[in-house]
Amino acid sequence: MDNLFEIDDWKIIENGFDPSKQKQAESIFSIGNGGFGQRANFEEQYSGPSLQGSYVGGVYYPDKTRFGWWKNGYPEYFAKVLNSCNWIGINVEVDGETLDLNNQIILSFYRELDMKQGLLIRRFRVRFDSGKELEVESTRLCSMADDELGALCYSVTPLNFSGNVKFTPYLDGKVKNHDSNYDEFFWEENSQRVDMQKGYLSLKTKKTQFTVSTAMRFSFWKEGEMLTIHPTISSKDFFIENNFDYFLEQGSKYTLKKYISITSTVNHPDFSVIPSSIKKVGEAYVNGFDKLVQDHVAAWNTIWEKADIKIDGDQAAQQAIRFNIFQLNQTYTGKNEKLNIGPKGFTGEKYGGAAYWDTEAYCLPFYLKTAEPRVARQLLIYRYNQLDKAIENAQKLGFKNGAALYPMVTMNGEECHNEWEITFEEIHRNGAIVFAIFNYIRHTGDESYLVQFGRPVIFAIARFWVQRFNWSEDKKAFVMLGVTGPNEYENNVNNNWYTSYLARWCIDYALEVNKVKMDRSVACLTDVEVKSFNHLLSAIYFPKIEGSNIFLQQDGFLDKEQITVDSIPESQRPLNQHWTWDRILRSIFIKQADVLQGIYLFEDHFDLTTIKDNFDFYEPKTVHESSLSPCIHSIIAAKIGRVEKAYELYLRTSRLDLDDYNHEADEGLHITSMAGTWMVIVEGMAGIRVFSKSIKMNPVIPKNWKQYQFKILVRNQLLEIRVTQNECEIVNKGNQDIELTLFDVNILVKHGETYIEKSSKTSTT
Amino acid sequence: MDNLFEIDDWKIIENGFDPSKQKQAESIFSIGNGGFGQRANFEEQYSGPSLQGSYVGGVYYPDKTRFGWWKNGYPEYFAKVLNSCNWIGINVEVDGETLDLNNQIILSFYRELDMKQGLLIRRFRVRFDSGKELEVESTRLCSMADDELGALCYSVTPLNFSGNVKFTPYLDGKVKNHDSNYDEFFWEENSQRVDMQKGYLSLKTKKTQFTVSTAMRFSFWKEGEMLTIHPTISSKDFFIENNFDYFLEQGSKYTLKKYISITSTVNHPDFSVIPSSIKKVGEAYVNGFDKLVQDHVAAWNTIWEKADIKIDGDQAAQQAIRFNIFQLNQTYTGKNEKLNIGPKGFTGEKYGGAAYWDTEAYCLPFYLKTAEPRVARQLLIYRYNQLDKAIENAQKLGFKNGAALYPMVTMNGEECHNEWEITFEEIHRNGAIVFAIFNYIRHTGDESYLVQFGRPVIFAIARFWVQRFNWSEDKKAFVMLGVTGPNEYENNVNNNWYTSYLARWCIDYALEVNKVKMDRSVACLTDVEVKSFNHLLSAIYFPKIEGSNIFLQQDGFLDKEQITVDSIPESQRPLNQHWTWDRILRSIFIKQADVLQGIYLFEDHFDLTTIKDNFDFYEPKTVHESSLSPCIHSIIAAKIGRVEKAYELYLRTSRLDLDDYNHEADEGLHITSMAGTWMVIVEGMAGIRVFSKSIKMNPVIPKNWKQYQFKILVRNQLLEIRVTQNECEIVNKGNQDIELTLFDVNILVKHGETYIEKSSKTSTT
Repeated sequence: MDNLFEIDDWKIIENGFDPSKQKQAESIFSIGNGGFGQRANFEEQYSGPSLQGSYVGGVYYPDKTRFGWWKNGYPEYFAKVLNSCNWIGINVEVDGETLDLNNQIILSFYRELDMKQGLLIRRFRVRFDSGKELEVESTRLCSMADDELGALCYSVTPLNFSGNVKFTPYLDGKVKNHDSNYDEFFWEENSQRVDMQKGYLSLKTKKTQFTVSTAMRFSFWKEGEMLTIHPTISSKDFFIENNFDYFLEQGSKYTLKKYISITSTVNHPDFSVIPSSIKKVGEAYVNGFDKLVQDHVAAWNTIWEKADIKIDGDQAAQQAIRFNIFQLNQTYTGKNEKLNIGPKGFTGEKYGGAAYWDTEAYCLPFYLKTAEPRVARQLLIYRYNQLDKAIENAQKLGFKNGAALYPMVTMNGEECHNEWEITFEEIHRNGAIVFAIFNYIRHTGDESYLVQFGRPVIFAIARFWVQRFNWSEDKKAFVMLGVTGPNEYENNVNNNWYTSYLARWCIDYALEVNKVKMDRSVACLTDVEVKSFNHLLSAIYFPKIEGSNIFLQQDGFLDKEQITVDSIPESQRPLNQHWTWDRILRSIFIKQADVLQGIYLFEDHFDLTTIKDNFDFYEPKTVHESSLSPCIHSIIAAKIGRVEKAYELYLRTSRLDLDDYNHEADEGLHITSMAGTWMVIVEGMAGIRVFSKSIKMNPVIPKNWKQYQFKILVRNQLLEIRVTQNECEIVNKGNQDIELTLFDVNILVKHGETYIEKSSKTSTT
Repeated sequence: MDNLFEIDDWKIIENGFDPSKQKQAESIFSIGNGGFGQRANFEEQYSGPSLQGSYVGGVYYPDKTRFGWWKNGYPEYFAKVLNSCNWIGINVEVDGETLDLNNQIILSFYRELDMKQGLLIRRFRVRFDSGKELEVESTRLCSMADDELGALCYSVTPLNFSGNVKFTPYLDGKVKNHDSNYDEFFWEENSQRVDMQKGYLSLKTKKTQFTVSTAMRFSFWKEGEMLTIHPTISSKDFFIENNFDYFLEQGSKYTLKKYISITSTVNHPDFSVIPSSIKKVGEAYVNGFDKLVQDHVAAWNTIWEKADIKIDGDQAAQQAIRFNIFQLNQTYTGKNEKLNIGPKGFTGEKYGGAAYWDTEAYCLPFYLKTAEPRVARQLLIYRYNQLDKAIENAQKLGFKNGAALYPMVTMNGEECHNEWEITFEEIHRNGAIVFAIFNYIRHTGDESYLVQFGRPVIFAIARFWVQRFNWSEDKKAFVMLGVTGPNEYENNVNNNWYTSYLARWCIDYALEVNKVKMDRSVACLTDVEVKSFNHLLSAIYFPKIEGSNIFLQQDGFLDKEQITVDSIPESQRPLNQHWTWDRILRSIFIKQADVLQGIYLFEDHFDLTTIKDNFDFYEPKTVHESSLSPCIHSIIAAKIGRVEKAYELYLRTSRLDLDDYNHEADEGLHITSMAGTWMVIVEGMAGIRVFSKSIKMNPVIPKNWKQYQFKILVRNQLLEIRVTQNECEIVNKGNQDIELTLFDVNILVKHGETYIEKSSKTSTT
């Protein structure tokens, strides 16, 4: 696979402009701050192929559902992440000719995403029809220090002339979602005002009635001196602008500094949305661009301090892991309990919705080990707040007694997805939510979370599972019929091992949690429930291959033609673009980790031989056509000593978007799977496992890496880990001693001390 | 269930106007002639709730597909039956007030569908705001003698005044499909012309470019005398009219006779479509209305002569069976090989398409026994002509070597349906097509059909089946994974007994057919194919309950909660309106005959105990939420001596639309299931079976019937059958002797002779 852009430790670099890569670049160079995000569209007009995209967290539109044939229980709408007001726009005109990289001759072009500082930087030179040449430099940020602030600094230098140039900074709210089901326009105008060097545009979403206010201010500078200008103000529906001509002297650099504040009713009462944005943008204007950058970079430093992973000896891997960590932090910061992590973050529209099971199964482990516990906690609270909707959702499906089924896709707790085989049947998502609570507690030790927030969710989900099994007189066991596992290349199967195993664990965990007696104000299981839960647990059916330790993905799996992925001609990959659905379904090929997902979650339940045997059975049948798949297989491969396999799968997952493996980066990035990439280093390569009663570490290192190092938070202690080809170093930067098991030997790493294990075990086998 | 309209032997009668029933009435009183059809909309303006519908056979529009999530192999479009030019329209105006039953006071109203004569008749009196009262009478027909002709006779009598009345006969082509996916208008205007008392409107479908020309002429009469009038001609886009005022004398009847001819490029070259319609309507005009009626009624007489069923002692049953026979004959006449039988015929738009498996499985048996063999043959030829498309369709799904998969829904051989669980998996439809050929030959003895038309279709379908099985190393047998059987309340199951059984039979039949050696110009299986077919047949897996003779619907069926339909609260019926899809799928409840459909088709393969046991196992689990279901169960119930059960199911199927059981008659009638109703009498009650080597008859009769009688064509001989509570009479009206087995005794009925069996066996048990 060729690299799409240049390799660098800390940067993504594009040298020379290739319009055919523009949409991919717009995704890959996206910036965001957890509150809002912006694709790397150009400030100036661009008439070439582009996906203009600006997204505000938590603001959505209920787009009328599209379906082939209506089924009861389908949601009426699909919640769409909204493409909103374009705030970066500055038009530039020379002698009536508008600057547009699709029209002028491009003399040079450089674009850089500086991940260390969180800045998007661009420099280019163009020649106009008139022969006049301009150099443009721009720097843009979405402030990590204040998630309602953005700013850009746009400099123009006339290279071979002195003369008038016209500047038009504007706000444009006439923005459409490209993925609108019925080509509707989702916004209405609320109010607007434009003044000299400032203005705002306040828009309201139709139906959901979210108000979003975008306020701007700008100033104009020659080198370090602010200039007085007399712009013409102008406006129309959904649009405000200032425009002014200025005589620029050849060789001098003129800079337009544009500040914006985006506020919404997600975080403000309706009446203060507009004033807040005006006030905030005013402060930013007064403080100036440099101060904004300074605060922003400081915030990124704090993040990198905890979350960075260094890899020596493999720059592609180094760039990739930082890109993944960077994008995750741009998408979610844990500051707001109403937000979650959409599969495309703020980089595109596809899939809509904000919360998939990806959040619990992939993203949570990342935030648990790289950020303060409050960040992960916020993700749990998001689901806690939506428990009532999950109970309502289960009721629609015929479940009773407060059973809860969380939605497959949601913005507000209501189900948005409408394919029956997913919406109604891919119910393992429900288990991931319980596992996330369990995982949070074992990482943080925050048992108090259970009392108020954990128990109601755990019990409601357990109630669902208990009802979802039914007694099979034929098997003399409880079976779970009609489900879709994580492997979506199987639909409506019976006894999906992963789902049943996870369900059993949830019920078991609910019983365990319930043992801690609480007063009446706290959720509890009734005695009748405890009895029925225990009864069910005594006889759940799990499919397996007799006489082996292979867990079968589902009933009938052995009836399939038993072939392996290497028998598929390259021309037929990916299967989902070449085969009809029935053919995919009845083939043995697995889209993504399914049984292995269960083995990953519950690794401590199985011995090494069982893990190896299942890996050897399933990996050759897995096509990894989900971005969530290779990371899980990679972690297990590392666990069983297949380091080169683990490395191969790591590269596939870590550079998925950077090298655009699946030819879809133009639509946005695979944000949630990026957490999987991080997991491969920490859990796969470094072999770190945080269990309730122990922390284990079994590091390995790929042949071509000199060393890798990272920090993690475990039990609220910051550990710094460094692994080389022949040693492993653990620095305890916390304030408490930490016991852990390294290469199966218990060790104690005292706080403030460094432990070094000289070992050949890290070397590849 | 209350009757919607009055009961009568030969008529459907509505006495008194109930606007809330208008849309149901429009469906139920529909008329058609196989070439086109017309809902029972009013000629004069009607501003109340109505579904205006006029449909022309074989003319369709490829409406862009609607889907939740695109899957490879989905068709780009769904072929829609087209709502076309409204040809019945006549506006009537008194003192500027337009006649409209939604506006005037209705003094009396009577509507009648005369099924014997095929006439739609209406009589009503209204009082205008002015106090003026009119009587209106109308008679309408779609000529069964010429399927491009329609006519209506519209009479007006001023009851309490003499004065001017304005008449406006028109053609209106601005007609929209109510079921358009994206609210598109499907027509463009081709040409139009309007003259004194005549005109035409020629429209073209977008994309498919079908031309449809509707030509009209009209005359105006006072009693028996044609009047000279001087109408104003007028036209606009998609619309032509004549309008004229005439001074009517109180108490005299004035009649507007409107003739139309509808021609299309389905049957004419483009250049002659318009001239044909003009010529034909001219001839009709010259011959006059009475002659049209005379020819039309004569054509109906010929049909009834063969197809009528008389039931004495049960008028509701009598009316129902005639209604079913009437609608079937209005929908399909076998005159045109490009036509087939849409599920709603010409009575509505829902479902679109023209050919479902209903045609082969339900309609064909009806036409085989009630019409000349050419009618059934035409239905077979329809599929034969689409073989190339079926092969192409199978190729899309990954099948090779000329394997064919016929579409689930089609207009032109291409698949139109797009739900993966149906489109790709409900493949039993393919077997019905082979069975239809087999059935045709055993009824008609027309072995010659096999040579040219039968073999290529049979072999191509057998090739599909052979590839669709795969070897299960686990079961040491060939299995068929990922199918949907006739019971669509199960999706994507393994080893659906019905589908596998039918597939095995198809392969076996292909081998049998192939034994007849032909010269090289005739389709043959290769020796390699013969070998592989035989190999497959030796080891096909069928699920069954061990130690019983119950065939299991599919793998895992016994894992379901084993309950029966009577446990479902009435408030939750029909399930498909109350339960979510996952709940329906994992429940045991069966939408429609599935295993029993197979037992019905291959009854001679099973002994009576097996049939009984399977009926007793499946009937209590069947909710009959498909119109195609009760008839099959009824036939089997009769077969095993459960006459009252058979009768209960008969009523349910025969009056489905007349009494609007499912509250959906407003959208159109269940045309194809009507054939099932007929089957219940002939195959169920009379117990007639036409096997290749024998004809069997085991009549029963419900307690409340005095007698029933009908004619059937078997081996080209016309038999008249009459069954009473204690005798059974067979009249051989053919020219050859017929051997048959009556109550298990072989008898010979000589041609021209009557055989009477006095027997108590027909009495109910």
